[in-house]
Amino acid sequence: MATEKDPESSLKLKLRRVIFGTDTPAGRYFDISLMVCIVMSVLLVFLDTVASVHERYGDMIVIMEWGFTFIFTIEYILRLYCSAKPLSYARSFYGVVDLLSVLPTYLALFFPGASFTMVIRILRLFRIFRVLKLLRYLSEGNLLLRAMMQSSRKVFIFFFSVSLIVVVLSAVMYVVEGPNNGFTSIPKSIYWTIVTITTVGYGDITPGTPLGQAIAAFTMLLGYSIIAIPTGILTAEISQEIGRTRDLRRCSNCLKVGHENNALYCDHCGSELESEL
Amino acid sequence: MATEKDPESSLKLKLRRVIFGTDTPAGRYFDISLMVCIVMSVLLVFLDTVASVHERYGDMIVIMEWGFTFIFTIEYILRLYCSAKPLSYARSFYGVVDLLSVLPTYLALFFPGASFTMVIRILRLFRIFRVLKLLRYLSEGNLLLRAMMQSSRKVFIFFFSVSLIVVVLSAVMYVVEGPNNGFTSIPKSIYWTIVTITTVGYGDITPGTPLGQAIAAFTMLLGYSIIAIPTGILTAEISQEIGRTRDLRRCSNCLKVGHENNALYCDHCGSELESEL
Amino acid sequence: MATEKDPESSLKLKLRRVIFGTDTPAGRYFDISLMVCIVMSVLLVFLDTVASVHERYGDMIVIMEWGFTFIFTIEYILRLYCSAKPLSYARSFYGVVDLLSVLPTYLALFFPGASFTMVIRILRLFRIFRVLKLLRYLSEGNLLLRAMMQSSRKVFIFFFSVSLIVVVLSAVMYVVEGPNNGFTSIPKSIYWTIVTITTVGYGDITPGTPLGQAIAAFTMLLGYSIIAIPTGILTAEISQEIGRTRDLRRCSNCLKVGHENNALYCDHCGSELESEL
Amino acid sequence: MATEKDPESSLKLKLRRVIFGTDTPAGRYFDISLMVCIVMSVLLVFLDTVASVHERYGDMIVIMEWGFTFIFTIEYILRLYCSAKPLSYARSFYGVVDLLSVLPTYLALFFPGASFTMVIRILRLFRIFRVLKLLRYLSEGNLLLRAMMQSSRKVFIFFFSVSLIVVVLSAVMYVVEGPNNGFTSIPKSIYWTIVTITTVGYGDITPGTPLGQAIAAFTMLLGYSIIAIPTGILTAEISQEIGRTRDLRRCSNCLKVGHENNALYCDHCGSELESEL
Repeated sequence: MATEKDPESSLKLKLRRVIFGTDTPAGRYFDISLMVCIVMSVLLVFLDTVASVHERYGDMIVIMEWGFTFIFTIEYILRLYCSAKPLSYARSFYGVVDLLSVLPTYLALFFPGASFTMVIRILRLFRIFRVLKLLRYLSEGNLLLRAMMQSSRKVFIFFFSVSLIVVVLSAVMYVVEGPNNGFTSIPKSIYWTIVTITTVGYGDITPGTPLGQAIAAFTMLLGYSIIAIPTGILTAEISQEIGRTRDLRRCSNCLKVGHENNALYCDHCGSELESEL
Repeated sequence: MATEKDPESSLKLKLRRVIFGTDTPAGRYFDISLMVCIVMSVLLVFLDTVASVHERYGDMIVIMEWGFTFIFTIEYILRLYCSAKPLSYARSFYGVVDLLSVLPTYLALFFPGASFTMVIRILRLFRIFRVLKLLRYLSEGNLLLRAMMQSSRKVFIFFFSVSLIVVVLSAVMYVVEGPNNGFTSIPKSIYWTIVTITTVGYGDITPGTPLGQAIAAFTMLLGYSIIAIPTGILTAEISQEIGRTRDLRRCSNCLKVGHENNALYCDHCGSELESEL
Repeated sequence: MATEKDPESSLKLKLRRVIFGTDTPAGRYFDISLMVCIVMSVLLVFLDTVASVHERYGDMIVIMEWGFTFIFTIEYILRLYCSAKPLSYARSFYGVVDLLSVLPTYLALFFPGASFTMVIRILRLFRIFRVLKLLRYLSEGNLLLRAMMQSSRKVFIFFFSVSLIVVVLSAVMYVVEGPNNGFTSIPKSIYWTIVTITTVGYGDITPGTPLGQAIAAFTMLLGYSIIAIPTGILTAEISQEIGRTRDLRRCSNCLKVGHENNALYCDHCGSELESEL
Repeated sequence: MATEKDPESSLKLKLRRVIFGTDTPAGRYFDISLMVCIVMSVLLVFLDTVASVHERYGDMIVIMEWGFTFIFTIEYILRLYCSAKPLSYARSFYGVVDLLSVLPTYLALFFPGASFTMVIRILRLFRIFRVLKLLRYLSEGNLLLRAMMQSSRKVFIFFFSVSLIVVVLSAVMYVVEGPNNGFTSIPKSIYWTIVTITTVGYGDITPGTPLGQAIAAFTMLLGYSIIAIPTGILTAEISQEIGRTRDLRRCSNCLKVGHENNALYCDHCGSELESEL
């Protein structure tokens, strides 16, 4: 019985290494071709929304969609089969996304509008970060994430203060400009204030009265200058993170860490540093 | 008499700890439910300006508005009652804002247009910073404020120079483009220059002549590049502030301060640092 | 004769200290009231371009304009009179600006269109920097100027590369979109590219073809990301400048300079630093 | 035979120093006049696309174009002639660009539409960097390039994450707003998202529904704040590069490198530094 189970578990193990792993050539090849399939299936959904493409290639796209759905269904079943704990995979974020990315095509047979939810497939692309791990891109991404974590409180305070200002400015603009100039309600006025303070400036709603234009000019100058605050916060944190991760060489003589990157000698005791970086 | 006064003052004291304090669970609970009431009452005023909502739920909103006003009136009276110095509370910024946030509903009985001033209630939200204090958000906010103070002179010089440039460019554009292209007056031309130099770009007024377009292009490039100046100033100051507040550990051997955050040993004398950070 | 000349030269000297100097109360008072006059006279010219204001207060503005011109004429004559070297004053930048700021009103008697050149008065406002000197604002401005000088070469290379990219993109967009979509000529296409790459986005000219929109999207993303380059350059230089100007205390024991701002002890030899900053 | 070849090779060598070299006065003069010719010939092509200019000066421009083509043809032949390895020059980037910049005028004789490809001449302007080398601009450019290289991985991760967000937001906006509000297809929706997230904001497509405007406001705030990330990355790297390149003076006593710019004494051993910077 042990011999009977061994081959099965060895097949499972082999599949698992290919499907879930990224450290074998087959695993990497599987991940990359999966990425290509996902990108292509999402591109198909996108192109199908263009009227001229839909008219011409609509039937072909439906067939290809079924093809991709078929591939993804098999992949999902294989993942369930070879996973060490199928249930915990099915409940995990990626497990749910994998299931949701095949369902829409089947559901669209019964509910025609369901095909748009196929866009959920794009979420599967986040798996690419696992492939990127191979390419050592992940540590750089982690550095950014750490810097963002470090600055999250300051950025939260910044955004909280900005939203209070936005709300007050919106109420003022609603009273000053009124519905005749497009400020039909305070929520719409908030939309305008955000369009203005972020310097997007669609121009679908613009102030018409001199006082409104003066307040608008003030809003713009405010938005133009406060962008410096989150930038300053993040820059300072990224600088710190880069400085922290760069040179952790420890002087073998005096134990000092944190020399400059191009240092040849310890800047305290003058003994030569090993270039193991 | 002292015994008669004690219970009363103990009630006052208890109320004061709940209403003004934030260090007891009851005080925190009171502050947070007050925040929720303020946000909801402001949201009501905002939604009431949407025509379709006003038609459908207008009556209900009026009733709820009165409910919130009733709550805030009682709160104001309680604050006056339990405050150690009622008069100095009534004259303080928050005291005036608290009064102004209940008056509009009563005034609207006699003057229909007064209800918009209810927006002043939003100013009460700044109280949230006191609640945030509990969550240690305030020190981060103070760091930002200190950095802004430090850079205020440089930023003032920057804005003063920019406004001189804006005025000169506006006068030139008024002469070049003239009223036919929407530059009906120099103040309007100043509005256009600010829209352009802050890279908002509504497009409600755009240059029509080749020379005007060339000057506009110059204005855009100017605005696009000078944003670097306030950003640079603030980033440098925030970096300094972060560096200053981070590692103030003093080496117990040589008394040096200002080591790097991850330093294990003093970078001057090599003795181990205490990790009390 | 010497006695006759002495009182005259003492009057000259007194006047010179008031008009050219900023270190006496009278000199400061003179400079500040001059600033107020200049700002008001420029504001008048600006408001006069607003049609409704011109109709109502046009006559009054003409009278006030003459009043200001009269004041500035007397001031110009006094400057010529009390200057140590009248000719070198008359030829200096401020001398020419002072003359040009009074001429337009007189010229407008003969040539009606000349009144707009009155805007040149605004240039006199740059004198305000002399007043600011009193308030120690100038050293901060100098720090910014030094940082800009330091980074000018890098910024020049940046702008040179960007303009090459702008020119190539403009030519491509002209070919792709053509005159039907508003890209009537390559110079106009360059205007569009600058509007887009600086993220101003008027919307007076927008791409209509899918390929044009793709190139436009690329242009936007380019402009959105390369703003980081001048910002990075300037921030780095400002950081350096701030660091350089801050702590120039020299350790009296080992002569090291450039300690951290909050350093109590020299970070090389450990001897106490004087806090003369 | 050696004597016969020597004069020829001396002519070749002389020409090569003028045409390819930049270290003789003649070489510099040649490069600068070539730059002027290139700029003027490109300007001609640009101005020729303006309808009014084409009508008036069209014939003159054709003649001048032939003149410039003639000059560039001779230059190309001379380069081929005097180059040490003519074939490797012809195959190099500049060799191909030089050829492509003269072909269009000749091709336009047979294929009228080919004249636009003349814009390729602008690529020759990149040669200016060689001239800039003389002015020591290149090392500054290299510093920028190195900083960009250093940050390329982080910036790639940033752009990859942003594009995933853009795609998801585009799909959502297409479903929310639909073709009636201008979101005719998902590719067009992607165009809108990029216009919005980069804060360009043309206003050719704007959300009409309240939900769409809320998502648009979120997109703007996102774009407004994430610009801080590439800026922070690049600023940190440029700071590092500037710090690294600035002071590489080595203390002659203890061999330490990396002193501050204004250091007079080595901050480790206190011996005086040579000011050879």
